[in-house]
Amino acid sequence: MPERAIGVFDSGVGGLTVLKEIMRLMPAEELIYLGDTARVPYGTKSPRTVMRYALEAAAFLARQRVKMLVVACNTASAVALPALAERFNLPVVGVIEPGARKAASITRSKKIGVIGTEGTVKSGAYSRAIRAIDPEIEVFSAPCPLFVPLAEEGWAEHAVARLAAEEYLAPLMAKQIDTLVLGCTHYPLLKATLQQVLGPGVTLVDSAEETAARVVFPLAEGALLRRARSGKPRFFVTDVPTRFERVGGAFLGASLEGVETVELEGATDPVVSAAVSG
Amino acid sequence: MPERAIGVFDSGVGGLTVLKEIMRLMPAEELIYLGDTARVPYGTKSPRTVMRYALEAAAFLARQRVKMLVVACNTASAVALPALAERFNLPVVGVIEPGARKAASITRSKKIGVIGTEGTVKSGAYSRAIRAIDPEIEVFSAPCPLFVPLAEEGWAEHAVARLAAEEYLAPLMAKQIDTLVLGCTHYPLLKATLQQVLGPGVTLVDSAEETAARVVFPLAEGALLRRARSGKPRFFVTDVPTRFERVGGAFLGASLEGVETVELEGATDPVVSAAVSG
Repeated sequence: MPERAIGVFDSGVGGLTVLKEIMRLMPAEELIYLGDTARVPYGTKSPRTVMRYALEAAAFLARQRVKMLVVACNTASAVALPALAERFNLPVVGVIEPGARKAASITRSKKIGVIGTEGTVKSGAYSRAIRAIDPEIEVFSAPCPLFVPLAEEGWAEHAVARLAAEEYLAPLMAKQIDTLVLGCTHYPLLKATLQQVLGPGVTLVDSAEETAARVVFPLAEGALLRRARSGKPRFFVTDVPTRFERVGGAFLGASLEGVETVELEGATDPVVSAAVSG
Repeated sequence: MPERAIGVFDSGVGGLTVLKEIMRLMPAEELIYLGDTARVPYGTKSPRTVMRYALEAAAFLARQRVKMLVVACNTASAVALPALAERFNLPVVGVIEPGARKAASITRSKKIGVIGTEGTVKSGAYSRAIRAIDPEIEVFSAPCPLFVPLAEEGWAEHAVARLAAEEYLAPLMAKQIDTLVLGCTHYPLLKATLQQVLGPGVTLVDSAEETAARVVFPLAEGALLRRARSGKPRFFVTDVPTRFERVGGAFLGASLEGVETVELEGATDPVVSAAVSG
């Protein structure tokens, strides 16, 4: 079992920011990353559709006999985490709870901002997770749909990104938040711009970093940590890999090679069929 | 046959700009619109994946017994038009050729700019279509990935859109184009901003308008025009319709109601299976 890989999935390149942190923290681990690039993005799609996609992605990773599932996508974590934990006999870690816990631990004003996709913000998942930890905390959320294309365009530090950030963040700043959760795996690329707009009084919480730290525990508890010197990641996508390889480098902080294409659609996996029709 | 509907499809809401023009020009026609909202966008995906999605969308419309197919999506037109015309026994109209013809007819400097998605620009379809009409024309293309999310965000006339337009259009303006083709069905929403950035010396060509005009001919030739007083559109999407209804209104210029959800994925349609595996 310890030799098995950790399975990580996202709708596209964004989850590579989580993968990068896992690799940094646990360099011995084998990793399998799946980006559902034929159907990206998840953030503007309905909970029903995101649920189906997440179950198909997890089923693919389960077939690769991974020892753990990491949902490196905020939208899928917000919508599908309980279903995934129920359907697959594996430890499942999402990105919401680690980010929520970190934010709750550092806020002093007890006013936290959360930015994410439309799907993540609408789900209210961060708000629920934070208030479950401390009901006195007020959570203010804002969807920022332009941040994903800005990050993918390589414009994370462009004047356009700064102007968009000023527009999106103004209502949160008016609430005097002292902590901002980056509730989308694309947003760490925008850190410099966001910090500039927010000023030094607001601390950014990067879910990618927090999630990687959270991956260690269930593996250590189950004696599942790998003891080899160094592991390596394998990459799968559902569209041809050209764009993933080109755009993903900035997210992983390393070049991407040997990316393979797989089919998820219309999967006849009984687990998925039962879950989607049920 | 004249009583049958015209079938129109796009990856999402963008094609509603084409539908709107068809309704204006041919108010008697019944229309069926399909937006593949569970897999939107097409513009960043590979030709292979866009081909498969387009064949599945067209197969759905063919099953509704439409009398004509309108591919109201530049990316799908650029990639899949010949395959669609070959596989389906129906007149097929795309958005590329009408826009190309109009642009070629109005340019004086013989320098035309084309903006579109990454997929459309990479395909070179506009450049080929324009130069087939007049090989002396020079075509300069630029992908503008942020324009789609800007239009969907309702920020078409926001300072962010203006700044992005300045950035994207500068290289085209440096080439002294006198005509700019809006090679994506989302872009008509940005007309005011684009014209402001380009100044009065550049004429915008709206593929939506040109395409609607082109739909009339094959119907008239085949005596397929409907004689009733007024038709009405029916709308289908592949995700739940909430977002389509909310965002689409600005594209259609009217409110959207009664949108139905359908499944396209894993279609066992023999036409699609043969085409995708072939």
